[in-house]
Amino acid sequence: MRPAEDRFHEECGVCAVVGHPDAANLVYLGLYALQHRGQESAGIATWDGHRVHSHRAMGYVADIFDRKTLDRLPGEVAIGHVRYSTAGDSALTNAQPLVVNTQHGPLAVAHNGNLVNALSLRHALEGEGAIFQSTSDTEVILHLAARFRADSVEEALLAALAAVKGAYSLVVLARERVLAARDPLGFRPLLLGRLGEAWVVASESCAFDLLGAELVREVAPGEVLRLDRAGVRQIRPAASPPYAHCVFEHVYFARPDSRVFGEDVGIVRQRLGERLALEQPADADVVVGVPDSGIPAALGYSRFSGLPFVLGLVRNHYVGRTFIEPKQSIRHFGVKVKLNPVRALVSGKRVVLVDDSIVRGTTSRKIVTMLKQAGAREVHLRISSPPTIGPCFYGIDTPERRELIASSATVEVIRQFVGADSLGYLSEAGMLACLETPAENFCTACFSGRYPLLETESETLAKTQR
Amino acid sequence: MRPAEDRFHEECGVCAVVGHPDAANLVYLGLYALQHRGQESAGIATWDGHRVHSHRAMGYVADIFDRKTLDRLPGEVAIGHVRYSTAGDSALTNAQPLVVNTQHGPLAVAHNGNLVNALSLRHALEGEGAIFQSTSDTEVILHLAARFRADSVEEALLAALAAVKGAYSLVVLARERVLAARDPLGFRPLLLGRLGEAWVVASESCAFDLLGAELVREVAPGEVLRLDRAGVRQIRPAASPPYAHCVFEHVYFARPDSRVFGEDVGIVRQRLGERLALEQPADADVVVGVPDSGIPAALGYSRFSGLPFVLGLVRNHYVGRTFIEPKQSIRHFGVKVKLNPVRALVSGKRVVLVDDSIVRGTTSRKIVTMLKQAGAREVHLRISSPPTIGPCFYGIDTPERRELIASSATVEVIRQFVGADSLGYLSEAGMLACLETPAENFCTACFSGRYPLLETESETLAKTQR
Amino acid sequence: MRPAEDRFHEECGVCAVVGHPDAANLVYLGLYALQHRGQESAGIATWDGHRVHSHRAMGYVADIFDRKTLDRLPGEVAIGHVRYSTAGDSALTNAQPLVVNTQHGPLAVAHNGNLVNALSLRHALEGEGAIFQSTSDTEVILHLAARFRADSVEEALLAALAAVKGAYSLVVLARERVLAARDPLGFRPLLLGRLGEAWVVASESCAFDLLGAELVREVAPGEVLRLDRAGVRQIRPAASPPYAHCVFEHVYFARPDSRVFGEDVGIVRQRLGERLALEQPADADVVVGVPDSGIPAALGYSRFSGLPFVLGLVRNHYVGRTFIEPKQSIRHFGVKVKLNPVRALVSGKRVVLVDDSIVRGTTSRKIVTMLKQAGAREVHLRISSPPTIGPCFYGIDTPERRELIASSATVEVIRQFVGADSLGYLSEAGMLACLETPAENFCTACFSGRYPLLETESETLAKTQR
Amino acid sequence: MRPAEDRFHEECGVCAVVGHPDAANLVYLGLYALQHRGQESAGIATWDGHRVHSHRAMGYVADIFDRKTLDRLPGEVAIGHVRYSTAGDSALTNAQPLVVNTQHGPLAVAHNGNLVNALSLRHALEGEGAIFQSTSDTEVILHLAARFRADSVEEALLAALAAVKGAYSLVVLARERVLAARDPLGFRPLLLGRLGEAWVVASESCAFDLLGAELVREVAPGEVLRLDRAGVRQIRPAASPPYAHCVFEHVYFARPDSRVFGEDVGIVRQRLGERLALEQPADADVVVGVPDSGIPAALGYSRFSGLPFVLGLVRNHYVGRTFIEPKQSIRHFGVKVKLNPVRALVSGKRVVLVDDSIVRGTTSRKIVTMLKQAGAREVHLRISSPPTIGPCFYGIDTPERRELIASSATVEVIRQFVGADSLGYLSEAGMLACLETPAENFCTACFSGRYPLLETESETLAKTQR
Ligand SMILES: Nc1ncnc2c1ncn2[C@@H]1O[C@H](COP(=O)(O)OP(=O)(O)O)[C@@H](O)[C@H]1O
Ligand SMILES: Nc1ncnc2c1ncn2[C@@H]1O[C@H](COP(=O)(O)OP(=O)(O)O)[C@@H](O)[C@H]1O
Ligand SMILES: Nc1ncnc2c1ncn2[C@@H]1O[C@H](COP(=O)(O)OP(=O)(O)O)[C@@H](O)[C@H]1O
Ligand SMILES: Nc1ncnc2c1ncn2[C@@H]1O[C@H](COP(=O)(O)OP(=O)(O)O)[C@@H](O)[C@H]1O
Ligand code: SF4
Ligand code: SF4
Ligand code: SF4
Ligand code: SF4
Ligand SMILES: [Mg+2]
Ligand SMILES: [Mg+2]
Ligand SMILES: [Mg+2]
Ligand SMILES: [Mg+2]
Repeated sequence: MRPAEDRFHEECGVCAVVGHPDAANLVYLGLYALQHRGQESAGIATWDGHRVHSHRAMGYVADIFDRKTLDRLPGEVAIGHVRYSTAGDSALTNAQPLVVNTQHGPLAVAHNGNLVNALSLRHALEGEGAIFQSTSDTEVILHLAARFRADSVEEALLAALAAVKGAYSLVVLARERVLAARDPLGFRPLLLGRLGEAWVVASESCAFDLLGAELVREVAPGEVLRLDRAGVRQIRPAASPPYAHCVFEHVYFARPDSRVFGEDVGIVRQRLGERLALEQPADADVVVGVPDSGIPAALGYSRFSGLPFVLGLVRNHYVGRTFIEPKQSIRHFGVKVKLNPVRALVSGKRVVLVDDSIVRGTTSRKIVTMLKQAGAREVHLRISSPPTIGPCFYGIDTPERRELIASSATVEVIRQFVGADSLGYLSEAGMLACLETPAENFCTACFSGRYPLLETESETLAKTQR
Repeated sequence: MRPAEDRFHEECGVCAVVGHPDAANLVYLGLYALQHRGQESAGIATWDGHRVHSHRAMGYVADIFDRKTLDRLPGEVAIGHVRYSTAGDSALTNAQPLVVNTQHGPLAVAHNGNLVNALSLRHALEGEGAIFQSTSDTEVILHLAARFRADSVEEALLAALAAVKGAYSLVVLARERVLAARDPLGFRPLLLGRLGEAWVVASESCAFDLLGAELVREVAPGEVLRLDRAGVRQIRPAASPPYAHCVFEHVYFARPDSRVFGEDVGIVRQRLGERLALEQPADADVVVGVPDSGIPAALGYSRFSGLPFVLGLVRNHYVGRTFIEPKQSIRHFGVKVKLNPVRALVSGKRVVLVDDSIVRGTTSRKIVTMLKQAGAREVHLRISSPPTIGPCFYGIDTPERRELIASSATVEVIRQFVGADSLGYLSEAGMLACLETPAENFCTACFSGRYPLLETESETLAKTQR
Repeated sequence: MRPAEDRFHEECGVCAVVGHPDAANLVYLGLYALQHRGQESAGIATWDGHRVHSHRAMGYVADIFDRKTLDRLPGEVAIGHVRYSTAGDSALTNAQPLVVNTQHGPLAVAHNGNLVNALSLRHALEGEGAIFQSTSDTEVILHLAARFRADSVEEALLAALAAVKGAYSLVVLARERVLAARDPLGFRPLLLGRLGEAWVVASESCAFDLLGAELVREVAPGEVLRLDRAGVRQIRPAASPPYAHCVFEHVYFARPDSRVFGEDVGIVRQRLGERLALEQPADADVVVGVPDSGIPAALGYSRFSGLPFVLGLVRNHYVGRTFIEPKQSIRHFGVKVKLNPVRALVSGKRVVLVDDSIVRGTTSRKIVTMLKQAGAREVHLRISSPPTIGPCFYGIDTPERRELIASSATVEVIRQFVGADSLGYLSEAGMLACLETPAENFCTACFSGRYPLLETESETLAKTQR
Repeated sequence: MRPAEDRFHEECGVCAVVGHPDAANLVYLGLYALQHRGQESAGIATWDGHRVHSHRAMGYVADIFDRKTLDRLPGEVAIGHVRYSTAGDSALTNAQPLVVNTQHGPLAVAHNGNLVNALSLRHALEGEGAIFQSTSDTEVILHLAARFRADSVEEALLAALAAVKGAYSLVVLARERVLAARDPLGFRPLLLGRLGEAWVVASESCAFDLLGAELVREVAPGEVLRLDRAGVRQIRPAASPPYAHCVFEHVYFARPDSRVFGEDVGIVRQRLGERLALEQPADADVVVGVPDSGIPAALGYSRFSGLPFVLGLVRNHYVGRTFIEPKQSIRHFGVKVKLNPVRALVSGKRVVLVDDSIVRGTTSRKIVTMLKQAGAREVHLRISSPPTIGPCFYGIDTPERRELIASSATVEVIRQFVGADSLGYLSEAGMLACLETPAENFCTACFSGRYPLLETESETLAKTQR
């Protein structure tokens, strides 16, 4: 079993290409760019005019696919998926795209998000004789669609989506076409791009960059598109605001070179840092960002405060590879393997340490300790988002509420725990002020406790308080 | 794509253990013994009192499972499966046991056989909204069971089985119990064994030997058993004869140290050889069996004819491992890699060469050529079964009709093709006479063309004549 | 560490091809055929006219080489090696061919055998500044050759061989030529073959069969040949008899379809069985051979005695693959996994059980027990060689003297240990009488204690008595 | 064959631990930290009081070693090595530590550097009968030491080192002790550290950080140390200046969190950037560093120039994993996979782009193009070192002279080639001014053509002009 991670993380990323002779290879590139949205399994499914081909496996995109595997995925239409699995069901069974046969023909689906009514739908479907092979919400959507005696896959999918509640950004391969759908609140990003004659859909715009595609626009919240050789057709209109875009995508999940929810992530993060400097100034000598996620905000902090930014922490290039601790070791090497202080830059200095968020607090504690051991005179920890106090039900893998240090501890208690000389969080209002999209269009539930969507009153209570 | 094989082969083997603390490990042993019934994938599923654990993968049993994998399969109830996949769908998706969730709870199924009405059932189920993730008949049975609003899994399974037509020897893991079912005609073997307090079910008795279990009896044709801690209970009675036991199990598929359909395979094979000597004598010096399948019959031939048996062909111990032909090679190495003649034993001799069957004829041709090159003066080929003229629809992977040399060629033409000096097959009557079970209880369809079960007239025609 | 094995086994096999555009691939085939002479590592080295290419790895020949690896071994001259490593030095460092650069240019060597004066030579060489990277005797030969300031590699190798004492059948790749050398006593086999224009050298003739080459003759004891495009030239003449051919090659090591020391192994083994029946008759019903090594002798026993041979023990096809025992198991599964009795053939019978040799006795004990559990009324164990009482110093991996049951126990004690109703060994004279080559040309040291070659008196004593 | 890389890179890193029960694991950590100095193979050798244990393999440190492998490396003394292989000899044979047996007992060596007289020594040694198994300089040193009839390994090693000329930072495991040696010019770094009672040696101080060891001092140029349980003893004194420390270690090779040649790499790089801004100002809006190597200098440039530093290029976290280009692709994806521009930060901007060096120019060209495509109005390329005009003979893998764009092209021609609006290099004097160590103690040969050490006049000419 995987040790509890000290961070929130994205559960999935999706990508689709329609109308390109090398579709699988392009989707592969897209997944390569979206790797940070899911590192445990990946898969691609294609339609070659006659049948669906697919390949899914555990591991990194680059390890799963090679020339041979890609050559076995012929066709001009392809979808793909990267996935983090949550504890207990990391099996290959849950890897996507999920490929099935139905009365509407073969369907492949790749899904990013989380349904809040999946469990009750599941029970209802089982009661009607459905058999479930995975624990993923995606299978629920497929069952709903398969059950609907529609004239077309489009109709069947719309019917299925009408029944589900929650966050979904999904792509469906249905023979020669791809359907791309986004939930009405637009929790997770989904974008439309163009590469010559071909159409591309992806979770983040960085996928388009690697493909050499150009960003056309977001798939709008609530919108369902049908993409085929003939072009793009809207088969369900956009929903009206307010939306519930995940503000955490901007704070941490998305790549800094991506554009999501209509704004550039890298720019937003820098602005969060500037605002943080305004709200939470510090009497210090240098600004150090926690690589990589804290760097943009640290640069913003430096710029606004006038304090010099220094590369006081270096991120090891080989992070992510297994690591054997020495037997006699009493210290935890985890953070050391990933980060190392540059003594000469922090020694004797009063350091403003900037990171994006604090989850359990253990990582921050190790970094603060490390800096102090490297000679830092003072460490003033600044966080470019508000305290995370609750779990996410919309497609982000989060520790349970009681493991979130800010769910029970005050800022002062947290400061003591991490060992910083001062600790300052960005305010919710401040965070939202850094975004051009109006505040009411963002979900901030894990910071504020105001969940935009819940299944039932009682479930809410149960869930948000466990 | 795998090259067309010059043989019929079994598609699956199953095993189950109920009531033993080390259930998964015992099933692993059982599968190890049943490896010859399916070499492309294997899997085990267990129930630990709370949930189902399972592991399936492509490859050999010994390569798939190790201590760690087995330790992740806790519980006192386990079922397992080995599988040959047929061309085109060798993917992991079709590996078994198939594990699903239904209104009757979690179910895992391992199945040996082939349904003749799977396709029409499948279409009907899809029309009602079922989604299919594999192309296996097993999923059809599961859908039928899941759909049935029964009070118990037992009832649901019986209802499902009532709808299917064909060959099945299957084990179902349903929480703390295993259901073992066999089709009314009893095409494929299925046996019940006992190991101390535990119950074991397996496709062949050789599995019991490796486990140290003792054979109790066959699961009777048509019978469905429920095995749990409390013991064994019959939940569907045996069907009445006539049955359609696959005679080819005795001729070739089963291990010579197994007991199936109430008789010892090794003994039967020897008897087939004796009868063959009676029906098809030869004026020769020595008897050589084609290792390994032809050896028992060759010994029988030798005994009856009085001609000395010699080890004129040696089987390489490392068969089954990949093999790179030299670039300049014009000859096919296939058989050479597997078999090598012992020149001194055959040179200058008139050889009676005994094998179990001829499928395409290409292998026999290579062996005959090899013996002649090794100096054999004459080669008299004797086959311990009748000419194979048709495909099997009951769980055996067979080439298409037109690839079976005996489907279109006379014995004389086959003789010329394989290059033997004479060729003699055992008669159907002669073959059946070597078995104690009455002839009417055997399927001999691939030899006789008399198929005991077909879906519809027209389908029959289409299939048997393609 | 590998569990102590209950058998003697060959330590190496060698193969060479000269003058064929696909030399590496042919050597690969040769090694495939010689796999039984060494299963832990394999390697091939080639000369492409400019440089030496080589590939060595741990594992089976079929797993180590694929199309790509072979394509990276270009050239018309190639040598290869399969190897069992002995405990403690199984590392890749000892894999062969050993490839080095010397003043005589690049050399690659593959060696089957064991030098008796390796250790003292080694110390002398180290004293002169040599560095040793492996523990193999082969490196000693190379150092000796490299040190000799000769005009040619041929001269240097002859000088080196003049200094060594022991068993060697070796092939040396020296640019465009291969040198093949055999020690004057001819302990291990080495044969010369021809494939069209190309020359082949191999440890057993079965390698020629797979390549499609024809056996020309043995490389004579003491002879050194030089093979190149121009043909075969003798550069050291054959030694005169008496020789010390390893009689155990005929008894057990070599493949039954091989020809070594001028006789067909399969025929010899059958004769050993016949003689065994003469010397050690038994009052019994059937003869059962222990597969595979005991089968030829069992057939001979059956023929001479008139008792019917039956396939009472079946050898599992998947032997050699790892195997996980159940946790609760008290019995040893080892033999069960490999062999299984056919109850119907042995039950109630008085069985003559024939095997080639008894090493520790543990395997025989398990087989006897197994047959009795399968219902055998009596088991009369017959061994087609004399008791093995001492270790081998000539290229065979053997347990230490005290682990050889016959080194300390009488036949009666061994009989009791294995649980047989009677036990009979073939006499040394009887064994030698089955061979056409005069008795004085065979080494029988491990049976007789008469070692044909030892380093020094004292060492002998130490070694043979430990 | 590996495609020509557009960079210089370090060939090796070494590490040793003496006097710690978990020595192998600590060396493993050290190698993990030194991974950037060699990514193709790694190895560890230990002394357990009785014998040497070792494990070497191709691949990343993290992939080569696991708990089991480390447990097979017992002992309190260990050395390790990471290695880039140069074209043509990437085989495992060249992996280190090299382990041999000599008259002085078993020796294991790990070497960072390159000898300039290796070839002539090699030929001389071969003439005296030495056999070479690898193409590495290290084997030359071992042969020399083994040949010397000294009373101790120490003496033998010193004698060997007296004969070699070139760059070496090496660690030798000789039973219970480790000898650490550095060439008199001190080309490559080598440091001594302390962890409790244990001693540590490593190529860069970042290895100490991960181990939790503290930096004691540099092993001085020319110095040879003997480390054992009793402590550290100097067995060859330091050489006197001037030295020839590789200035490129500071510019690019070493990790920014390392300390080498008495200075902090991260600080030096920042200073190089400041100086670059002084020497090569630019009329621009923002400063962008090429991640990761260009970032510290870019920060320095920003600080000195007052132009804001922005994260205009993002480095993909999954770099280093294989990558399949689409078939139709005409563009090279190489750089895209690694770097992606943040459009919003560079669009419409005049960008100062800072990198450490230009080798072939192809990478710089792609980055400039990428920035322009992302909307940069102007790109002013600034390099924090002088033009690289010649190869390195001191342990750095460099392209041949003619492949170095600055060896033949003027700055203006290079500017045109890379497509920048202006191009400015740091001067040699400027570069050296950023270091506290006097200029005459640095090698700058690849920038200046002044090679501090060459074998012979003629060789020099041949080499430096090819
Ligand atoms: N493990 C590491 N952690 C941090 N920085 C490293 C590490 N290894 C190498 N570096 C630094 O990274 C730089 C190389 O990285 P980068 O510039 O991204 O790649 P490239 O080799 O293509 O220039 C070197 O300057 C080196 O100092
Ligand atoms: N590739 C092979 N094909 C056929 N026989 C072989 C092969 N390799 C070895 N043999 C023979 O098989 C015998 C060893 O097999 P077996 O008796 O089954 O195993 P064990 O090593 O346990 O005795 C040897 O006598 C040898 O002659
Ligand atoms: N594990 C096993 N041990 C012994 N015999 C087996 C085993 N598995 C299958 N067999 C028998 O071996 C025969 C198949 O082997 P063989 O004739 O050598 O190969 P082929 O499949 O090419 O005919 C079958 O008749 C089967 O009864
Ligand atoms: N492939 C990538 N290239 C660049 N940045 C990435 C990439 N993937 C994720 N990121 C960014 O890196 C951050 C996570 O990296 P980092 O902070 O180093 O690790 P951690 O997950 O421990 O916080 C996220 O904010 C994300 O925006
Ligand atoms: S709860 Fe948090 S992580 Fe989840 S969607 Fe809302 S803001 Fe994003
Ligand atoms: S058709 Fe042949 S193989 Fe199939 S069940 Fe009948 S007898 Fe057996
Ligand atoms: S001692 Fe035995 S095994 Fe060794 S060579 Fe002599 S007969 Fe052969
Ligand atoms: S030539 Fe260049 S890379 Fe080589 S040591 Fe000198 S400065 Fe360093
Ligand atoms: Mg982070
Ligand atoms: Mg057969
Ligand atoms: Mg044997
Ligand atoms: Mg760089």
